[in-house]
Amino acid sequence: MSVTHKVVFTPSGLSLVAEQGQSVLDAAREAGVEIASICGGRGLCRRCQVHLQTGNHAKFAMAVSDNSLSPSTTREDEQRARGHLPEGRRMACQARIMGDCVIDLPADTDVAAMHIAKGGAGFTVRHDPPVRLYLCELPIPNLDDNPDDATALAEALTAFGITAWPDLHALTKLQPILARNERRVIAVVRDGVAVVDIWPPSTAHIYGAALDIGSTSLALYLYDLSSGALVYEASAPNPQIRFGEDLMSRVSYIMMNKGSETRLSEAVREGVATLIAGALAATGIAAEHVLELVAVGNPIMHHLFFGINPVELGQAPFTLAVKDWVEAPAGSLGLGLPAAARVQMLPLIGGHVGADTTGAYLAHMDGMAGRSVLLVDIGTNAEILLAHNGRVAACSSPTGPAFEGAEITAGVRAAPGAIARVRIDPANGNGRFQLIGDEAWYSDAAPLPTVSGICGSGILEVMAELASAGLIDAGGRFRAEAAPHRFVPDGQTIAYVLVERSPNPIIIRQTDVRAVQLAKAALAAGVKLLANHLGCTAFDEVLLAGAFGTHLDPAYVAGIGIIPDADASIIRAVGNAAGQGAAMALNSIADKARIIAATATLEKVETATEPRFQEYFVAAMSFPGAPDMPPAARQRRRRPSETPAGAQP
Amino acid sequence: MSVTHKVVFTPSGLSLVAEQGQSVLDAAREAGVEIASICGGRGLCRRCQVHLQTGNHAKFAMAVSDNSLSPSTTREDEQRARGHLPEGRRMACQARIMGDCVIDLPADTDVAAMHIAKGGAGFTVRHDPPVRLYLCELPIPNLDDNPDDATALAEALTAFGITAWPDLHALTKLQPILARNERRVIAVVRDGVAVVDIWPPSTAHIYGAALDIGSTSLALYLYDLSSGALVYEASAPNPQIRFGEDLMSRVSYIMMNKGSETRLSEAVREGVATLIAGALAATGIAAEHVLELVAVGNPIMHHLFFGINPVELGQAPFTLAVKDWVEAPAGSLGLGLPAAARVQMLPLIGGHVGADTTGAYLAHMDGMAGRSVLLVDIGTNAEILLAHNGRVAACSSPTGPAFEGAEITAGVRAAPGAIARVRIDPANGNGRFQLIGDEAWYSDAAPLPTVSGICGSGILEVMAELASAGLIDAGGRFRAEAAPHRFVPDGQTIAYVLVERSPNPIIIRQTDVRAVQLAKAALAAGVKLLANHLGCTAFDEVLLAGAFGTHLDPAYVAGIGIIPDADASIIRAVGNAAGQGAAMALNSIADKARIIAATATLEKVETATEPRFQEYFVAAMSFPGAPDMPPAARQRRRRPSETPAGAQP
Repeated sequence: MSVTHKVVFTPSGLSLVAEQGQSVLDAAREAGVEIASICGGRGLCRRCQVHLQTGNHAKFAMAVSDNSLSPSTTREDEQRARGHLPEGRRMACQARIMGDCVIDLPADTDVAAMHIAKGGAGFTVRHDPPVRLYLCELPIPNLDDNPDDATALAEALTAFGITAWPDLHALTKLQPILARNERRVIAVVRDGVAVVDIWPPSTAHIYGAALDIGSTSLALYLYDLSSGALVYEASAPNPQIRFGEDLMSRVSYIMMNKGSETRLSEAVREGVATLIAGALAATGIAAEHVLELVAVGNPIMHHLFFGINPVELGQAPFTLAVKDWVEAPAGSLGLGLPAAARVQMLPLIGGHVGADTTGAYLAHMDGMAGRSVLLVDIGTNAEILLAHNGRVAACSSPTGPAFEGAEITAGVRAAPGAIARVRIDPANGNGRFQLIGDEAWYSDAAPLPTVSGICGSGILEVMAELASAGLIDAGGRFRAEAAPHRFVPDGQTIAYVLVERSPNPIIIRQTDVRAVQLAKAALAAGVKLLANHLGCTAFDEVLLAGAFGTHLDPAYVAGIGIIPDADASIIRAVGNAAGQGAAMALNSIADKARIIAATATLEKVETATEPRFQEYFVAAMSFPGAPDMPPAARQRRRRPSETPAGAQP
Repeated sequence: MSVTHKVVFTPSGLSLVAEQGQSVLDAAREAGVEIASICGGRGLCRRCQVHLQTGNHAKFAMAVSDNSLSPSTTREDEQRARGHLPEGRRMACQARIMGDCVIDLPADTDVAAMHIAKGGAGFTVRHDPPVRLYLCELPIPNLDDNPDDATALAEALTAFGITAWPDLHALTKLQPILARNERRVIAVVRDGVAVVDIWPPSTAHIYGAALDIGSTSLALYLYDLSSGALVYEASAPNPQIRFGEDLMSRVSYIMMNKGSETRLSEAVREGVATLIAGALAATGIAAEHVLELVAVGNPIMHHLFFGINPVELGQAPFTLAVKDWVEAPAGSLGLGLPAAARVQMLPLIGGHVGADTTGAYLAHMDGMAGRSVLLVDIGTNAEILLAHNGRVAACSSPTGPAFEGAEITAGVRAAPGAIARVRIDPANGNGRFQLIGDEAWYSDAAPLPTVSGICGSGILEVMAELASAGLIDAGGRFRAEAAPHRFVPDGQTIAYVLVERSPNPIIIRQTDVRAVQLAKAALAAGVKLLANHLGCTAFDEVLLAGAFGTHLDPAYVAGIGIIPDADASIIRAVGNAAGQGAAMALNSIADKARIIAATATLEKVETATEPRFQEYFVAAMSFPGAPDMPPAARQRRRRPSETPAGAQP
């Protein structure tokens, strides 16, 4: 009959009943406590340090003595003598349970706490990385037992349950590092099968970058893949902007300038290289320790990042060069990453629905499972994804850039000084507004700060307020009679004056109203198309991904009819979900596999060829809650086929 | 009941009874006649051109009319209209058997004749290449049926029975080439699984290089992998020579000059790059069409070529960094090959037995199977391989460079002007000799040409002749009493004068005799060790590989006791067998697999730790047929542990 002891691990509080003689490392793993170890428990890597908490522990009803663990082993004495193991610390692989124990994982060694790490970006990632470190000690060869060192390394790795073979880069480093470190090396193993680098045994961490390649800006998230912790994040403008503000103008540039696609590829890669160099400089991390990069981006950014000419995406039928997960050695891309690094990108869905959408889907896949959830990312086009009844469908809808503040007279990108909130008094048509980064409400009746313009959320609110105040009718025509003093002549028609006294007055033109109508109608039609495609009649939740969603007031999203039939209470902004998806696929091979599998069965709905899309589009043009439009005006309404500039044709 | 017809193919004469309606291409394959086709028989690639031989064929007792084949198809008419199909030619995939046929494969399309191709090097290779071309025509996409082009390509390849996916390099080329060629591309498929490049449909050939990296010289063999034909060969000195004449001096240089291994790696790679550039310039072949390189070389050349520091091979226990087959992208090696190219090298056997030996073994594996065959490659060390009774064993023996003409007073490398054949008259001790590239026999009795020295085969012959003429005794000591006028004083001893009147007399010193004794004893001991290891008592054949073997007279090899117990009739020079092995592994995936499998089970015998090696070495020191040495001299004999300079320690 075996002797057992109670073992409690702190700070987690996880516990188990352990066999006498069991190593602390084994006991911890059995209890679900993760302790770092890359040497297979042979006392070599010194990462599994723990601290025995002697004394009475009333909380656990336990008394712990020095004899509760086996005496210090030769390995531990050696490491202590070399200064590698502080006094009072034990190595979990060496110490064996001899009595009841309370064992603390010191903060500097506790990877369990970082297991589900939240970084500054607020991303939650699983820690199941594609690249892992294994400390191997190879036998000293002699003339009678003299395998080549690659074979000896592969043999040593089998002790970790791994069958892996070194590539040429690793082979060139193997013998010199063995010779300088008493035949100990760290094998850097990718996907459990390839030794892609060899490091000295003192190296501790391995890093990876998640990258969100937006057409406007690039966002980089540097992770410690050894722990899953975010160590740095930064963003920068996409240098491609000098070739065109929006996607379609960049593709047009390439079409008109033969061979220029390489310049656009180099531009975005240089932008990424600068971000990576900045991250390494700020953190002191060596470039050679960054071995993975996982990116998301729309199809055109995807193709250009990989050096694939995107001209086919600028013309029907918008055929992708490749839709599936892409991976390539970093060496060919000029990102400042080492030759051993790998660059990957999430799968695309279609010619207008990219890896940013699959990234956002991965980020929210768990929460969407078994529910009817709409995920919307609004940019120059809106990417829309709907999960319902075990199926997932996606489409892209040609909203145009109105929601980004472009193509709107007073429109600006969301930044301090931009109007983000608007209220219009139905009694007199006067407006009030809030600026980004400023809690105060301003109006023409009081001193005004400098106003740069109206950002996307402000544009949405001003339209909704104009409608509910009766200043536009359901068809989007201005009703000057409701507040004549707020309107001014504007060519053949009139414009609403939101801010009169600012150095640059803010006016809303009839064309601005039309642009927002087209955008919201396109979005609403796409949502309705997906809902009908999957037979979904009500949403449990609506997730707004991306920068636009962050500033939106759900009540206005619901009120203006952007998401048909959705109550404000179910609408939620989820930030950079695409970036989170990239970070998840970077840190977890299971999540990479999940998004690849999910994309393979995802249903792509083509708005351009779906006859009902036009019908839904027309039906969604009106402003709910606004006065009916006069019968004569219905004749003059702009046709939905007049696609906004810059959107997909 | 089906209708059948007799079909004869010329020039091969292969025939079959074909079903009526069967395509000529199918019938040819059934008959064992290979006709080129890379489009899967869809009339696109125009490579399967044949010529119907109408008229009476008395030889075959057949009458053939124009109606023996089905009429020209639309595909053929199209190709003829474009000038791609000469009048009178048919495409074998389009033409169907309708009567008895005699079908000729025109020389310009006949790959069957090249199937077992003999190049200038005399190499025989199997044609089963790792890279093949497939002409694919992808469907024109539309909005309703719009797969990404990578998926469309993979789908098209399934028609050839292949499941392959494009890598990033291929992805970047796919859409532009599709767009310019009516959606037809050639997929370049490696190992049946990876599309590594995309070419326009007009590209016809794909090339590969076999490379023999000798410590002294480099030899390149450029093959057309589409046919297995050798298209160019060239050799050049190994630029590493400036770091040391022999292997060990190069390793010593690296040991004494930290970091210099990269300079030696660059030197050999530059030499290879120059050979490749020369081959491309001479043939007009584009570098991007050379997608494979398979090399052989000794372990130190192997490691340096791949950028692996070989210092461990300069000191016991001579541990290899890697022994197995190595392959790497060409991009990292700076050889002037395209990024899509792959560089590979045959497996090694041990610290002193390299890929040159495995290459030679592959070249002669078929002939060695089921027999007792010794394969010997004599250089600074001798690599010896013995097949016997289903087993194969190999060792390296420290012969020193005597057989290469080095470390011998009058020794020179084999080249015009060097003495290659020697006869000594037992009656008077006078010598006659032949020079390389000159059939005449010369002696001091007649006018002499300029003599540069004695090459390896001349050294072997002069020693054998000295022994049989009684001018040295069995122990290798000069016997001046047998022909006093041919000897001159030489320090504390004497020297034999082979050529007196030349501008530079050719003398053989006592130390030269000793060096040859050590070399032949080391070789003989290695052979005996392998024979004993495998229990082999007699050889069916002895193959001498490499440059040294080419000039050797088997009678002298047998006579001097280099190969113990071997009769001259079974000794055969086989030329650059290592290079042939590289060419075979380049041209055939089956041969690559064969040598990998064979190397895995090959038994390595370590001469340095095998006690009997010293015993065999001592026993093999004497010259058979020479007069017995005086008893006193036996005491003074040099010990076998005095290893020749430059050989493995």
